[in-house]
Amino acid sequence: MSAAVSPLAPKKYPSMPVVEGVRIATAEARVKYKGRTDLLTMVFEEGTTVAGVFTRSKCPSAPVEFCRENLAGGIARILVVNSGNANAFTGKKGRATTVAVGEAAAKAVGAGKDTVFMASTGVIGEPLPAERITGFLKEMAVDAKPEGWLAAAKAIMTTDTYPKVATATVRMGEVDVIINGIAKGAGMIAPDMATMLSFVATDAPIAAPVLQELLSKGTGKTFNAVTVDSDTSTSDTLMMFATGAAARRGAPTITDAKDPKLAGFRRALNRILKTLALQVVRDGEGARKQLEITVTGAKSSRSAKKIALSIANSPLVKTAVAGEDANWGRVVMAVGKAGEPAERDLLAIWFGDIRVAHEGERDPDYSEEATSAYMKRDEIALRVDLGIGRGKATVWTCDLTKEYVAINGDYRS
Amino acid sequence: MSAAVSPLAPKKYPSMPVVEGVRIATAEARVKYKGRTDLLTMVFEEGTTVAGVFTRSKCPSAPVEFCRENLAGGIARILVVNSGNANAFTGKKGRATTVAVGEAAAKAVGAGKDTVFMASTGVIGEPLPAERITGFLKEMAVDAKPEGWLAAAKAIMTTDTYPKVATATVRMGEVDVIINGIAKGAGMIAPDMATMLSFVATDAPIAAPVLQELLSKGTGKTFNAVTVDSDTSTSDTLMMFATGAAARRGAPTITDAKDPKLAGFRRALNRILKTLALQVVRDGEGARKQLEITVTGAKSSRSAKKIALSIANSPLVKTAVAGEDANWGRVVMAVGKAGEPAERDLLAIWFGDIRVAHEGERDPDYSEEATSAYMKRDEIALRVDLGIGRGKATVWTCDLTKEYVAINGDYRS
Repeated sequence: MSAAVSPLAPKKYPSMPVVEGVRIATAEARVKYKGRTDLLTMVFEEGTTVAGVFTRSKCPSAPVEFCRENLAGGIARILVVNSGNANAFTGKKGRATTVAVGEAAAKAVGAGKDTVFMASTGVIGEPLPAERITGFLKEMAVDAKPEGWLAAAKAIMTTDTYPKVATATVRMGEVDVIINGIAKGAGMIAPDMATMLSFVATDAPIAAPVLQELLSKGTGKTFNAVTVDSDTSTSDTLMMFATGAAARRGAPTITDAKDPKLAGFRRALNRILKTLALQVVRDGEGARKQLEITVTGAKSSRSAKKIALSIANSPLVKTAVAGEDANWGRVVMAVGKAGEPAERDLLAIWFGDIRVAHEGERDPDYSEEATSAYMKRDEIALRVDLGIGRGKATVWTCDLTKEYVAINGDYRS
Repeated sequence: MSAAVSPLAPKKYPSMPVVEGVRIATAEARVKYKGRTDLLTMVFEEGTTVAGVFTRSKCPSAPVEFCRENLAGGIARILVVNSGNANAFTGKKGRATTVAVGEAAAKAVGAGKDTVFMASTGVIGEPLPAERITGFLKEMAVDAKPEGWLAAAKAIMTTDTYPKVATATVRMGEVDVIINGIAKGAGMIAPDMATMLSFVATDAPIAAPVLQELLSKGTGKTFNAVTVDSDTSTSDTLMMFATGAAARRGAPTITDAKDPKLAGFRRALNRILKTLALQVVRDGEGARKQLEITVTGAKSSRSAKKIALSIANSPLVKTAVAGEDANWGRVVMAVGKAGEPAERDLLAIWFGDIRVAHEGERDPDYSEEATSAYMKRDEIALRVDLGIGRGKATVWTCDLTKEYVAINGDYRS
């Protein structure tokens, strides 16, 4: 849809190392797009464990329901992702497609059907014929190579203006293990458009329940702390795979989430999740600025996050940021509408280091000029202190521009 | 800000009759605007009862707190409303202003301070010097005339592109009584901009507790069922005044909300509240289309309303309507994110009379052409049937256009 790359795109990409036990293949399946890859498979070696976090939508897509069922087994051998069609709100046909793709994928790697995971992103409500995908799987499974992480990130893009990747190398026991991740955004849902998908893989040997706990906890301050337009996709999917191949090099197998050997890994994983989540925000439809919102002094951290998201999702705050206007009155409004404990006359608000309001009024020392200069930046930090407790939270969003309306208000042709 | 009148403005205005016991005056107080009226007083005869419904914001404006306190007395003698400055987030200075205006207004009509009500709309966070207002009140109280309802509606406008009035004449006992109302919108909050204010008056003799019950109940399906951008003002105020003057012509005094003599009055009042609420939506910032959203078959009416508001507040649904796109996939998304009970495969969705989806998939008989023609209308009706219960609700909103972003993304200069 929008041809120009986001002004907030990364200036350079990391070189993505191989994750031992993962092989990658992409294809031009022409599910909808032409002249680009739109199908990704990742083949995992035997014994790979899996964890997943999915949309909270009450109307999830067929692939989300498929993955939720298979997650119970804790084992993954193949992941199949297509872009161009979300297979969401496609009724019985949608379920039939996931079953057919599941069978073909299982056959392609010679594994059980319950070791297949899949995701679809793109148009909603259009039937997705399974044969568009199934015919490719056998060949892709054979051809899959350890390299190709950037190509994988490209194959799953929809309205994204750039591919999203992240990597970390971290010490576990006496050896280095790798964590690689890819993601795509960019609004939350739409025909021809976006949902949030992210896939992370590591060669560390980590039991499925531990992997699930790492991923679930890591999501709170990363993928669940970003918002583009408050709309929640029917298909949001974050999955993590641990091949355990590093065990052959001497990495210890982790079966307890409290294992102190996980400390560095956990930090690295959370950093990767945050990097990917921020890349999604920075490629939000029409985004020109990243907005980091920190709420401190709330009654609880839960309360702080609810208030931070109320600010992040306020169209009036987001349009003000687009207009480079340090409009703290709208921030007060968004605090007030969150419904969480707040004392108007204890509120303080900062843009960057500039305190614009405190104790229920405009800060007398607040310089309109300095603030205007600050608001011209690409990355805006907004802080609100409620002054009533110790709860705090940070969330990220982007501004709301005319381009957002243009991208989403175009005819569905 | 935006010079052009909304394309959804009323084609003609009703002739507003006098409400016996109410006198009106407006003035150019230059609180912020120049060359237009920005101050309104309504003087009520002795014995006038009052009811009010206010913003749920946890950070309400000083005038909202002032009114809430005085509401306990149940008696009103004067209402003072200014536009241009909201006296919100103005700390101790803001409270001092309400006290000073309250004293001057009480003195102007020779009544107790607890019979004064006030509202302010406009810039947030700017001190509102009381003397901008107090100096006018004595003269306005003397000069106030029974006529001038349209002038009153004009004096309280901010970014509204047209004044909002409604009137009804209704039988109570053996005589006719009058209900008049005015309102202003148009976004939910902003410097130089909008909050929702509405004032309704009647000459019917109705005790304060009954008036409060009528107003509170009437709000649910009217003012509390409209949304422009999901943002809640610090200042939203709806007040109703009953002078009781019609008692002199033989109207019965109503002291019980269950009194059958109230039936016609209640219906007329609800109609007026709905008319005013819809005028606010139709003047939403940048609005070009009115969107009516009805949810049926929900688990409860509360659940239906929550889902309807989730649809109404979805930027993706609102931009689709702006783009004249019957994008039911985004409607499914908005149903799913509401968090209320829903069964994806029981959902049915209509635009106007055209069923576009049912039983979890696209309706096979759905004509893209007919739907496209329908979407070109000014007024779009969207219906979602959940198929799981008997709860239903209707809400109203407007589309989200580039003009909304332009109006709210401009520099605050």
